Amino acid sequence: MAEQPLAGRTVVDLTTALAGPYATLLLAGLGARVVKVENPRTGGDSSRGNAPYLGRDGLRLGRAHDDDMSVSMLLRGRNKLSVTLDLKHPDGVAVLSDLVARADVLVENYSAGVTGRLGIDYPAMRAVNPKLVYTSISGFGGQGGPAKAMDTIIQALSGIMGTAGSEGDDPVRNGLPVGDLVAPLFAVIGTLAAVVQADRTGAGQHVDVSMLGALTSLVACEPFDAYAAVGLVQRTGSLVPRLAPFGLFEAADGWLALCGPTDRFAAGVFSAMGEPALAADPRFATRDARVANAGALHDLIAAWAAGRRRADAVALLTDNGVPAAQVREPAEAVRDPLVRAREEVVALEHPRYGATADVSATGVPIRFSAAQVGFDRPAPVLGEHNDRVYGELLGYDADRLAALREAGVI
Amino acid sequence: MAEQPLAGRTVVDLTTALAGPYATLLLAGLGARVVKVENPRTGGDSSRGNAPYLGRDGLRLGRAHDDDMSVSMLLRGRNKLSVTLDLKHPDGVAVLSDLVARADVLVENYSAGVTGRLGIDYPAMRAVNPKLVYTSISGFGGQGGPAKAMDTIIQALSGIMGTAGSEGDDPVRNGLPVGDLVAPLFAVIGTLAAVVQADRTGAGQHVDVSMLGALTSLVACEPFDAYAAVGLVQRTGSLVPRLAPFGLFEAADGWLALCGPTDRFAAGVFSAMGEPALAADPRFATRDARVANAGALHDLIAAWAAGRRRADAVALLTDNGVPAAQVREPAEAVRDPLVRAREEVVALEHPRYGATADVSATGVPIRFSAAQVGFDRPAPVLGEHNDRVYGELLGYDADRLAALREAGVI
Repeated sequence: MAEQPLAGRTVVDLTTALAGPYATLLLAGLGARVVKVENPRTGGDSSRGNAPYLGRDGLRLGRAHDDDMSVSMLLRGRNKLSVTLDLKHPDGVAVLSDLVARADVLVENYSAGVTGRLGIDYPAMRAVNPKLVYTSISGFGGQGGPAKAMDTIIQALSGIMGTAGSEGDDPVRNGLPVGDLVAPLFAVIGTLAAVVQADRTGAGQHVDVSMLGALTSLVACEPFDAYAAVGLVQRTGSLVPRLAPFGLFEAADGWLALCGPTDRFAAGVFSAMGEPALAADPRFATRDARVANAGALHDLIAAWAAGRRRADAVALLTDNGVPAAQVREPAEAVRDPLVRAREEVVALEHPRYGATADVSATGVPIRFSAAQVGFDRPAPVLGEHNDRVYGELLGYDADRLAALREAGVI
Repeated sequence: MAEQPLAGRTVVDLTTALAGPYATLLLAGLGARVVKVENPRTGGDSSRGNAPYLGRDGLRLGRAHDDDMSVSMLLRGRNKLSVTLDLKHPDGVAVLSDLVARADVLVENYSAGVTGRLGIDYPAMRAVNPKLVYTSISGFGGQGGPAKAMDTIIQALSGIMGTAGSEGDDPVRNGLPVGDLVAPLFAVIGTLAAVVQADRTGAGQHVDVSMLGALTSLVACEPFDAYAAVGLVQRTGSLVPRLAPFGLFEAADGWLALCGPTDRFAAGVFSAMGEPALAADPRFATRDARVANAGALHDLIAAWAAGRRRADAVALLTDNGVPAAQVREPAEAVRDPLVRAREEVVALEHPRYGATADVSATGVPIRFSAAQVGFDRPAPVLGEHNDRVYGELLGYDADRLAALREAGVI
């Protein structure tokens, strides 16, 4: 087995729902030992109760067998170890401290104030392990914010809903929960950067990522209002007149995208259409002319596309050097053979029954030439690794394990 | 000055346009010394020629003065050093090799085949520095792909265009170039993970991130087709009937978002509306009932919202414990005082004239308790740091610098 980038690193995972578990999923995929700490009194991570479920009978809306597992947990729990631990029990924090003493990283996404009340906030854990990198993902950062953070709330506040569609359109909610998914990427970046620093200095620190800040910073990669101030309107729906020909067109059997902002690409579009002479048409011969006549140009392409099968239209465009592609539904995109070969998306498996339905799951979309990454262990059942973690890693003996179990601590 | 997470690390930056430069911008913001290598024959990174420009007279569509700089470069070039180097010149690769010998990381986003033709691909650079982490960002990964990678092409192929809007709607193009912006986040994660590994093993490696794979993997965080197979339709536009009351509503002066999927939140919505008795109405008393009557429920809320100022409606909802927020335009979102205070978004400055117009720019959306991150140096002009890098870092003497300049190598 090849090296793993984060081999030998241990992560204590105090996260639930989506944003936090996606961060620790990536750390697990990069080779860290991720110990997912779940509350035995509540049945663990709430994601274990999300519909739908995968089990011996395939995919179902409801849980039919005790060993059916939620798709959410099967996806986000891969390559993690599950231990139970009641952090509200008087003895719970001592067990957590034993874990933290052997860990490099802790990741949590509790609501504001909870870690302080439990006695497990950064100052408390730093006292146990000064080299610990303690990463928090929250809606608005440590200071709290105006609302309970849910993906749609974060999307609304971030401005991203005003970047799709056309000027004056209603706001556009993304079905992909980008408010939940961008923050964990920055949390992993911050965690790894702090690990690099801790390796150098011997000191850990608190890494604090806000879902609103993460998504808003991505929106601020494009200065939309500066563009608008000089007439470069960005919210132009499926077509972009200032780059014409550019945008989405409907073929006989589906949509395609093409990008022809240069003279060369535009000439390729005209050749693909069987009308190479249009490249010399005064309406379309220069970029300024094409922008001025974008409506007429896009209408011509739309009429051409409407009469063709999409695959044929894309092939003609591509053969003429024009960036073009089918607009795919998610179900088709996640089964792209290239994406599957690179394990950027993989098949989802139940720990006992395997892939009893064709469900796709995110991989680690990074290829390393000298390291093994990705997911080779299905999600654990609740507390599956109590003996391994508490026994082997922490060295608790059988009597102590039994006592903890009896007292309801684990 | 506090520690920087990546202090002492040197990055050779061979990127242009958006995806690559955003990756190295984040590395610079985390404290790495990023040496941006630009071609002196072409005027450097093409982003230097992107409208609009910022200069002594503020923001303009066209370049009015020699020292006007593009907003793109001002944003993406911060905290980087700029050197000129013609990699097609016979002596160019030797100079690059001197840089690589002193570097920890190289990042490139050339089109497929270019690094091989230039003699600067991973095997060549590994021969110079075996500990080098060599990170490539490309449209489809090392193997190439079906089309020239542009943001809209990547969005189309990734499936993300089929996640916004409603079932049966046309595909929705995101104005935010997520096809360009997600890959660099994974590239930074991969780079830092490989640095951790190289510190442990002494060996670097090639890190290969595909724009398509990165965005598709994010789409695959939600198994849309599995949800659809059991009746949990995800593409439901601005409202989500299966979580009702949930979605976007238009108030008298703008849109708001609210999320009320639980009994408690739904009761909060009814109280905010001044109709607490609706919580006992058989149509709305349970989650199943609310889902079954989602249309009627959302119509009631829409009518209530339409008669109110948005801020008042959000305040009423929030006071009643309901997650709710304004839907903000990007221009407003990037000026949120909390986001500015956390430096997740910052003001953009010209190196000589400062902030001559109110332009917002992405920050580092990660707060470190024991490190200094972010951008304290405006973008450089082309070749600004030739003496510093070639002279001080590589130790070239004045004669050699003059000869390289005269020969057009730098």
